[in-house]
Amino acid sequence: MKLHTYFRSSAAYRVRIALQLKGIGYDPAFVHLTRGGGEQHGPVFRALNPSELVPVLETDDGAVLSQSLAIIEWLEETHPSPPLLAQDPTTRAQIRAFALAIACDIHPLNNLRVLQYLKRNLGQEQATIDAWYRHWIGVGLPPLEAILQRAGGAGPFCFGAEPSLADICLVPQLANARRYACPLDALPLLLRAEAACRALPAFQAAAPEAQPDAA
Amino acid sequence: MKLHTYFRSSAAYRVRIALQLKGIGYDPAFVHLTRGGGEQHGPVFRALNPSELVPVLETDDGAVLSQSLAIIEWLEETHPSPPLLAQDPTTRAQIRAFALAIACDIHPLNNLRVLQYLKRNLGQEQATIDAWYRHWIGVGLPPLEAILQRAGGAGPFCFGAEPSLADICLVPQLANARRYACPLDALPLLLRAEAACRALPAFQAAAPEAQPDAA
Repeated sequence: MKLHTYFRSSAAYRVRIALQLKGIGYDPAFVHLTRGGGEQHGPVFRALNPSELVPVLETDDGAVLSQSLAIIEWLEETHPSPPLLAQDPTTRAQIRAFALAIACDIHPLNNLRVLQYLKRNLGQEQATIDAWYRHWIGVGLPPLEAILQRAGGAGPFCFGAEPSLADICLVPQLANARRYACPLDALPLLLRAEAACRALPAFQAAAPEAQPDAA
Repeated sequence: MKLHTYFRSSAAYRVRIALQLKGIGYDPAFVHLTRGGGEQHGPVFRALNPSELVPVLETDDGAVLSQSLAIIEWLEETHPSPPLLAQDPTTRAQIRAFALAIACDIHPLNNLRVLQYLKRNLGQEQATIDAWYRHWIGVGLPPLEAILQRAGGAGPFCFGAEPSLADICLVPQLANARRYACPLDALPLLLRAEAACRALPAFQAAAPEAQPDAA
């Protein structure tokens, strides 16, 4: 398999974690999202993914898959062990909802192209853009803490004793939150899950700073 | 089942379509997203979903499910007929990627709370907000047309002869595009799928204008 990735992309980071957790080897293809206006906008990458977004996974039988959560569901269906979702439908739905609350309602608002639009098209100052970034994290993470509190699980991961799709989405989002100095003290269950993840070699190997294309 | 819904919410609209396609009856609970500052922000709804977003599905065994795509995956797992995803993992991944390209990369950027932030916090004029809205649709839909062109399917739906999760996400997004007068002429395969959907009673019954809470 070949993964088109960028070290700092949260979406690519999610797929790297899933691949590592499942022990699936892959060839990385590096797509630099800011150099030369962004390699994802060039003709080579656009021919692969018209949406001009990483990650893209090329499978061994030639399929070209995009969207991190679709790729991870594909990995789950084709390489089911270890599982990244629970067995019962209700818990699966709760794990997916947690993941989607990050992947739909936090991350896209803070994506590179959105920050660029705020700056270039709306002429916003960096301080206003930083406040925007922190706003959506500040709105998005506390409900996830509340959901875990209500579920009352023993942890240490979001939904039990093993990492799931929820943790895979949480860790990159918390890395972003730290980059922008967002306050995290009121999120003990999220931090507990993150700490448990960071202790695992799979999460360590997938981290941005461990990637060959890290700046 | 009880569905907490708002007639104009694209995410609730997706779940309404899925329920109708699968022939699952439900009790609607209406959450008015703008009246009184937004009923989704009140204590009653927040106790149900700390993220303060519709839809929420309360299942017959008391589970509270949020996030439209997580709810639809749960419906697919618990009520598999008719299927909303293909059988083979690669096509499932392509359907999910199409759905996520809308649910992550177009819709959240044009959500009510984002438009409110642009207006209230960034002091943007309505014309600038409208341009923002059209920008993300203009960036997001053509790649989906390209993906369908490349797949070369016979249609009429996005991925074959029956509607799937892709169509369920497409139809509400195109309704939004029309509300903001986005040009759609260059998207013939998307329009073909939409027309096929709109001819189905399930899509008609789920449409915003058919809801009891429509203004």
